[in-house]
Formats: sequence, structure tokens, C-alpha cells
Amino acid sequence: MNRQDLTLLTDFYELTMMQGYYEEKQNETVIFDVFFRQNPCGNGYSVCAGLEQVIDYVKNLNFTYEDVDYLRSLHIFSEDFLHYLSGFHFSGDIYAIPEGTVVFPKEPLLKVIAPIMEAQLVETAILNIINHQSLIATKTSRIVFAADGDGIMEFGLRRAQGPDAGLYGARAAMIGGCVGTSNVLAGQLFDVPVMGTHAHSWIMSFKDEYTAFKNYAKMYPDNCTLLVDTYDTLKSGVPNAIRVFREFKESGHPLKKYGIRLDSGDLAYLSKEARKMLDAAGFEDATICASNDLDEFLLHDLKMQKAAIDSWGVGTNLITSKDCPSFGGVYKLAAIKNQDGEFIPKIKISENTEKITNPGNKTIYRIYDKETGKLKADLICFAGEEYDTNEDLLLFDPIETWKKTRLPGGTYTMREILVPVFINGECVYNSPSVMEIAAYCKQETDTLWDETKRLFYPHRIHVDLSQKLYDVKKSLLDQMSISD
Amino acid sequence: MNRQDLTLLTDFYELTMMQGYYEEKQNETVIFDVFFRQNPCGNGYSVCAGLEQVIDYVKNLNFTYEDVDYLRSLHIFSEDFLHYLSGFHFSGDIYAIPEGTVVFPKEPLLKVIAPIMEAQLVETAILNIINHQSLIATKTSRIVFAADGDGIMEFGLRRAQGPDAGLYGARAAMIGGCVGTSNVLAGQLFDVPVMGTHAHSWIMSFKDEYTAFKNYAKMYPDNCTLLVDTYDTLKSGVPNAIRVFREFKESGHPLKKYGIRLDSGDLAYLSKEARKMLDAAGFEDATICASNDLDEFLLHDLKMQKAAIDSWGVGTNLITSKDCPSFGGVYKLAAIKNQDGEFIPKIKISENTEKITNPGNKTIYRIYDKETGKLKADLICFAGEEYDTNEDLLLFDPIETWKKTRLPGGTYTMREILVPVFINGECVYNSPSVMEIAAYCKQETDTLWDETKRLFYPHRIHVDLSQKLYDVKKSLLDQMSISD
Repeated sequence: MNRQDLTLLTDFYELTMMQGYYEEKQNETVIFDVFFRQNPCGNGYSVCAGLEQVIDYVKNLNFTYEDVDYLRSLHIFSEDFLHYLSGFHFSGDIYAIPEGTVVFPKEPLLKVIAPIMEAQLVETAILNIINHQSLIATKTSRIVFAADGDGIMEFGLRRAQGPDAGLYGARAAMIGGCVGTSNVLAGQLFDVPVMGTHAHSWIMSFKDEYTAFKNYAKMYPDNCTLLVDTYDTLKSGVPNAIRVFREFKESGHPLKKYGIRLDSGDLAYLSKEARKMLDAAGFEDATICASNDLDEFLLHDLKMQKAAIDSWGVGTNLITSKDCPSFGGVYKLAAIKNQDGEFIPKIKISENTEKITNPGNKTIYRIYDKETGKLKADLICFAGEEYDTNEDLLLFDPIETWKKTRLPGGTYTMREILVPVFINGECVYNSPSVMEIAAYCKQETDTLWDETKRLFYPHRIHVDLSQKLYDVKKSLLDQMSISD
Repeated sequence: MNRQDLTLLTDFYELTMMQGYYEEKQNETVIFDVFFRQNPCGNGYSVCAGLEQVIDYVKNLNFTYEDVDYLRSLHIFSEDFLHYLSGFHFSGDIYAIPEGTVVFPKEPLLKVIAPIMEAQLVETAILNIINHQSLIATKTSRIVFAADGDGIMEFGLRRAQGPDAGLYGARAAMIGGCVGTSNVLAGQLFDVPVMGTHAHSWIMSFKDEYTAFKNYAKMYPDNCTLLVDTYDTLKSGVPNAIRVFREFKESGHPLKKYGIRLDSGDLAYLSKEARKMLDAAGFEDATICASNDLDEFLLHDLKMQKAAIDSWGVGTNLITSKDCPSFGGVYKLAAIKNQDGEFIPKIKISENTEKITNPGNKTIYRIYDKETGKLKADLICFAGEEYDTNEDLLLFDPIETWKKTRLPGGTYTMREILVPVFINGECVYNSPSVMEIAAYCKQETDTLWDETKRLFYPHRIHVDLSQKLYDVKKSLLDQMSISD
């Protein structure tokens, strides 16, 4: 597949609906919101990611001759409609929250304002991209939090759900806080550090473990991590590693950065024993890296048990977000422009209150405590609503409305977190580099208290509605229930 | 990303090891096996898939000028080695089990025989591709079994882990038994049926539900499934659908294939009520399709509760294999060719008996009961071992060796399931079309008794070792434990 051509990466119903709109000559401008209802993995926040790939996708939208030919072969589309498709391009506006920002349920991560035919087509691919990368960035952020300052390396490519899941998963993992990835293609395409040493097969291909270690160290004296568990970690692996470290030291050409990697067995016990052996041999600066089915829970427990591990390679459980492998972002109609050019708010009701959408053309203000810089709450309001931070701000829970907080004027700051990305089909946004996004994401998670980052039952950040948005939503709901 | 260039889709350590082999002038021919240790999701079997993409990958292996340039920029590779890479191509042999075959733990799904530098490079991408597609094909096979003959449609693109996970996930889902996919790109690339109707946004974009239905039916009279849960399934959706069906019937142009789709609420209750309403109105041939967070367990329960559902759209839980999102295939060294051209079997030991590898150059015979055609057992043996099915065959459990079965000569048949795919770097295998693979997979699952296909605690198929392979493995293990 050529990355330039994801135009047909869409659900079939987007095209049947498009033809329906086409035939009905119904192509009014609409607003769709991308949002999610729940943070994955029980987390207290999410990290949004994937915008750069969404931008590439939208820029390159284009039905080739082959695409149109294929659609014709399905015998369901008219020649008129196929002709329309062959000239298709995206002409609308897109607003989005920049990648690496911490986000919360119900917030529009991305807002498409476009003729309904265009807005409908892009639903599936936008969701696919944002759902995937936000999932992995969020999972990584949890794992990085559990590691409490130790480096996390992304090692999951072989278990990722296909090449893209490995590639863009590595991208999202770097955004979420990994220090490097084993994925060479990700290193090339996103200019991020690549890492790794050797496998068991390296050891097995030499006549013995010592010879394998010795040869590896000779090759890579600047950065030499030896995998010590091929035969027996404490009886064979660690002693052989120490022997090699010592030989280099005694030769007058000591290894620069060096250490061992544990990949099986009980990592708490083995790391502590290995640490003692390394220290006793005078190699206090040898690092211990661990891998083998790690996740944030095991990592958290190993840290509690004072495992002597300096850095962690995390594979399967990170790259698939094993306990919660989907993000659940949805794409819902929020408004339709009428003939007077006004956006008429639309709402999707549901028996489940949590599933009721927020209507209208919206934006989000993020509110910080002025003194600490910590995030206090998010406020969803209509685009264009303005606030004066010198005045008091009354926030209330949009479901349990009697729960209120008053922020005194001058004690808080606000910033709008949705920014323009496309205007009239033109891209007006420059994506930062992945490492820049990662640095920004670090700042973002620093605006959260540890209570919100806790792995279990984290403190919830409030996402409130402005009085104006709340009133419109309530009146739409009241109309709906009357018409029932 | 261009599908032609996945050469750098590899773990960094494959390249550092390659350089190590290069510098050591150590490039003997080796054998690596791809196998897995456990069926995913507690299943009784797996379905292997992904071979066609592995073939494409191997055919197109090639370090471009940009690739070499990138690797040079890492300041860890020598010019000699980079020069070697710039001329790299795969020159070895690959044997594999054809896609759609049912497979079991410990069996080599794929066997690479190549100079160690080449065999090492391809590890990561081969695992990535086989792990992903085999996972989704297996998950789909479970869901299809639970549906007991009803059609399953793959609807997961928006929740897949990136574009490839959607695309190749759809491919694997078709192999595993889906009747169609919503993924248009999968339809185009793999020539498989695409399916889908309309979303809630279609309904919401018209002045009312009836008008939306009417317009949709006018557009698609040959195949018209109306989504009935936008406002209220039984009070509004089903009555409006019936009104539209009736109007078309009375106009003398009845809809050809038509029905409704339920996407929320209790599917057992709503489907039975909707069925009564449709039947009472004279639309016994209207179909009822259901979607909304389905998996094999919910589907199984809904069937038990006699939900009146004819076909099922399955999304997130299929495309991510939610309860088990990775397949766990590994790539292990099995033999090294010595200077006399003989393969010396290699074994990777482990404290965990299940993790000990099977050494040597192996193949697999599948054994069927002659009368029923059902699969009796698989036998892993050395390549070249021959059997006469007119003679008795003694099988024994490779761990609990006292558990034995004697198959009388003439009562069983055997076939070798590993086939040549590359010989001396040339591809000698033609991949069937996806629909051909799907038909073959259906035949394959038909060789299993329902006891093995059961969702919970399925009957285990035996995978035994030949006496010769068992003896070599035992003697290698004995040597290892003595040298400890």
C-alpha cells in the first residue's frame, strides 16, 4: 500500500451515504466532532496523538482512476457520482488538539467543518488513526509513570498488529515518553533514537556464551549490553559478562557504556543478585536492563520490591495496549448549517446519559491554577465564547449540576486547546517533530497532579460545559423527550 | 510508507547482530523456526495467515540509498558492512504452512534456511506479519463458529490499530470466515465483498427518520438495510422502516433484499420484538442484522437466547482480538550447518518445559482418520523422515511419554503441511486469492470435531514428535543438564 493513497481506507457505508447525499443534492455544511467516552486502561487522562498522519491523509485524499474503476465494478454507484468522486478534494476546515496534549472524555479532539459529503468520507480513517495513536501514547504514559524516572524502551514491533501498528505505535510510544524504540523504520521516518543489542540466537550461534559476549563487546565497546539468560542467568550469564567486562578493563580499553539485560525468570530476585555480583566485581556503573512481558502493573510492583533495574524494554503489552486494545473514539454530528449560514446544534440522544452528545460548534478552554500551573478543569463552550480571567468563573458538573466550584478572578489562567489545522481545505498547521511533541507531552503531564496519574482509581479531572452550551443541550433534550 | 520498502521494518538488534556476524566472517547457513506456544483466546486451534505478505516482504528486501544513509548516520556501522547491505538480497529457502490451515502450538508455521545474516534480518517483519494475521484469522474463526451459520461482517476499521491493522485485519477476517467487510480498500486490494449501509448521521441529516429511510430505500432498492436505533428502536425506528417497506411494496416496486440493523440496546429482546412487528406487517423476508460491541461470547449467548438475528456486524472485538491482542509467535534457532554440510540441531533450554524448543531441520505430517476425514494428530519429525500408512503408527505424548496411541495401518492418511515457498532466494509458491484461502480454511476447520472448536475448554489436538526427533531432543537436553 502506498501511504499517499488511503482514500479507499474507509467504511463502505461512507460511500453509499455520500452517493445518497449527492443524489438528494444535499451537501450542507456540517460539524462532526471526534471524541471518546472513557480513558483507556482505567487511566485518569489520555494523550492525543496521530494528527500529523491525519493531516497527510486529508492532504492526499484523491480517488485515482483505479479507485473509481473499482467502485464502478461494484455496480452500485452512478456514473455521475463516480465523476464527482474523480474530482474530489477536501475543502473544509479542521480544528484539533495538538498531539501530546493531555485530554479527557467528551472533549472534541478534532472537529471537522465541511460539506456533509466530505465530512462523511473522512470519518473512518480519522478515527482509525487517532484511536490507534492516542491509545498507544496513553498506554505508554502509564508505563512511563510507573517507571518513575527509569527509561522505557519500546520493543514491540514483532507483536504489533501489522507493520503500521509497529511503526505508528512506536511513534506514539515516543510521544508518550519512551526514550527509544527498537523499530529502525520508526527511527528513520520520525528521527527518534533506536535501541537494542542482541538476541539469544547471537549467543547460540557461537561455541559458547563467553565467546559470544566477547565478540559482541569487541564490536560495540561504546554501548554494550549483554543478554545473560540464554543458559543460566546467575551461574553462567552474569559471570561470563563480568569476565568480559574485566578483560576489557584490564586491557586498558574499558567498555564505555555497558551492562546486562535480563529477559526471563524473576526480575526482582535476579536483578538484585546480579547487582551484587556486578558491584562485588567493581562494576558499579554496569546497568541492568529488563524485558519479558512487562506492563505498568508488573513494573510498579518490581519498583516497590526494589528490583535493581535501571531501564526497561517493554514490548507486547505496550504496543497492543494489551488490557484495553482500542481507544473508543467516535465521530458524531454536532451541527448543520442552515440557509442563513447559522449552525443549528444537533444532538444524539441515548438511554445512557453518558452517550448523549454535546451539540453545536464548540471549543475547549483549559483552566490552570495560576500559582501552581496545575490543570484545574476543562471547559467546553461554543466557539467564540469569551472569558475574562480577572473575573470569577463558576464551574458546575454537567450532570450533577448542584456540584459547583467558583474560581476567584486572578487566580486562574485559561488557554484554548483546539487550534486550526485546515481552513477552506488548506493546511494551516505545521506538525512539530516527534521529539518536540514528546517534550511538549512531558510538560503536559507535568500539569497533572500525581493523584490523576495514579495507575489505580486516579482522581478525575472535571470537564464542564459553559452555561450557554448547557442551556442549549438541555433545551434540545427537553424537545426530544416531548416529541417522544 | 511504500509497501515495497519494509526493509527497515526490523528491530535494531537484527542489524547490530548482522554486523557482528559480518565482522566475524561468520555466515553459516542456519535454520530458524516460527512457532507459537499457545492458541489465542483459549481456542482449540489457530488459523495461520499472512504468508502472502511475508512473500512480498522477502521479495522486496532491499536497502535503498536512503536506508544506508540513515544507518550511516547512526555512527555504529562500518562502511564495509553498509556496502554489504546495499547489495543485500535474500538467497535462502523458506518453507511454510499455507494460509488458512489450522495449526497448533509448537509447530513450525514457517522455516527459514539461510545464511545467518539473512535469516536474522527477516525475523522481526515475518513475526509481525504472521502474528497479526494469524491472530485475527483465529479470532474470526471463533466468532464464526459461535454464529453457527449466520453471516459475520467485519466492521472494525475505525478501531483497528492503524491502517494496516484495518486492512490486513480485514484480509485475515475474510480468511477466518467473514462473509464481507466494511473496508473498501480491503475490497479493492483483495477482491473480497464489501458491505455496509448507513450511519446515524444519515438519519440525523434529514428532517425526520421516515424521510431518511425513504431516501435511502429509493437509492438502494436492491439491498436496503435501515438502521433503526437513532431515536427509539421499537417506537420509531421499526415502525418507520415498516412504513417504507410497505410503501415500496404497494407501489409495485418492492425492495429486493431489505431489512433492519440494530446497533444498541438489548439485542435479544429488541430483535424478537422487531421480528414480531416485521412478521405481523407481512415482511417475513426482512432480515435483522445486529452490531454493537459483539464478540463470540455475547454472540453465543444471544444465539442461546434465540435472538431473532440473521447476520452480525462485528467490529472492535474482532479487529483487535480484544481479550488476547497478540499471537505470541516466536522465531528460534533450530540448527546450524557445519562444514560438512550437515545440520547440527540446536536447542534453547528453559526452566519452563513448555519453552524448550524442538531442534533440527523439521517438517510436519498431519494425520487424518481415513473413515471420517477428521484430523487425528500432527507429527513433527525431521525433514526427510518417511512413513508408510499401511503400517501401524505409534504416537506418544512428547512430555508424558507413557501416553501412547497406536493407529492401525490402513486406517489413517498423512499429508505433509509445510511446503516450499522460496528456494535459493526464488519464490516457488503462488498465493491463492483470499476467497480461495477462505474456502480452504472452511475445509480445514471441517476436519476438526466440534469438541475442538468449542469456545470454552476445547478438546486439545495432539502434536507429537517422531521417535527420532524425540531421541535427538532428549540427548541434547541430557548434554545440557550435564554441562550445567
